[in-house]
Amino acid sequence: MYKLMGRKGTGSAAVEALLALVGAEYKVEDVERDAQGAIPAIYRRINPRGEVPSLILGDDSVMTESAAIMIYLADLHPKAGMAPAIASPERARYLRWMTYLATTLYMSDLRYFYPERYSVDESAAPGIKAKAVADMESEFAVLSEGLGKGPWFVENRMTALDIYAAMLLSWAPDQKALFAKHPNLGALSQAVAANPAVAKVWARHGM
Amino acid sequence: MYKLMGRKGTGSAAVEALLALVGAEYKVEDVERDAQGAIPAIYRRINPRGEVPSLILGDDSVMTESAAIMIYLADLHPKAGMAPAIASPERARYLRWMTYLATTLYMSDLRYFYPERYSVDESAAPGIKAKAVADMESEFAVLSEGLGKGPWFVENRMTALDIYAAMLLSWAPDQKALFAKHPNLGALSQAVAANPAVAKVWARHGM
Repeated sequence: MYKLMGRKGTGSAAVEALLALVGAEYKVEDVERDAQGAIPAIYRRINPRGEVPSLILGDDSVMTESAAIMIYLADLHPKAGMAPAIASPERARYLRWMTYLATTLYMSDLRYFYPERYSVDESAAPGIKAKAVADMESEFAVLSEGLGKGPWFVENRMTALDIYAAMLLSWAPDQKALFAKHPNLGALSQAVAANPAVAKVWARHGM
Repeated sequence: MYKLMGRKGTGSAAVEALLALVGAEYKVEDVERDAQGAIPAIYRRINPRGEVPSLILGDDSVMTESAAIMIYLADLHPKAGMAPAIASPERARYLRWMTYLATTLYMSDLRYFYPERYSVDESAAPGIKAKAVADMESEFAVLSEGLGKGPWFVENRMTALDIYAAMLLSWAPDQKALFAKHPNLGALSQAVAANPAVAKVWARHGM
């Protein structure tokens, strides 16, 4: 039994969708901020950074880092077909773009939504946010080129990578303009959302 | 035959060390900046972001993202014992901390070394750099707590994760102060550098 600790509208959405697809037993517990907007101390004992999601494994150990959780779960439940096997010629492509999403677009999203976290000088926030938007433009362009025809990244089927990408696409500052510029990213987003299990999770997260 | 395209003192060091350890055939090609400090156009055709390292696989496909390359190579050469197998109870821990390094310390290093890249306003750089130093302090503290007694992260032996961590430790703004505060991180760094194959690569990279 897995326990996913997350929050609506956060990076826990993709993990929740993957849990629904791999056929494992799991429950979901949302970690709400307190009245002051702070992360509850009890959750900080699970993840010292206070970030969601965390996945509690069957042996009560804690896993963090959404991209790592996606790779872990997809590999551990191979029958679900959510990742290319280690020996697959598409394994490199899968890991490359999963890690790309985690280290570029996810990080740029954090700079976009929380620019005040990136300087000791609060007045720097608008310039940091503007740069995040510009960076995302080029990062989405590289992603679109990497995706190619689509709608799936690897093995002509939906994998954990597509779900993770679709979540990050949903956070784009101007999704309409993005999909007009890169129709293949729009097609990926639609194809992922057409999966009934994903659609249910996306709806719960207001996506 | 793998071809690693990197540069001395960059994230290619950990990949180069892992290549030396997994027993695969490989060659290394350094991608030097031109006289104006720019990445050569020929390399931008391999990686549009111009970043190193890139790994050229046997089928001529290109892989980027150093953490992804580490996970990929370690899994594909299991005899080298550089990663816990998918079914290992330590797999989650391995992927968690590998991804943690890539999304926290690696990113903070980029903000520390290239703060001018993170705002449209160049004058914001000093404040961004100072925040990166503060973030690294807390990120190293979380890493130290995660490592525990050490010197290895998983399975009582050196894995790709330890090598990746050691590289990021070598980039710390004040390594002496860091190891005084977190002796277990210093012990990890020493243990990794004591491996003769790693030591040879570290020396080539001036580490």
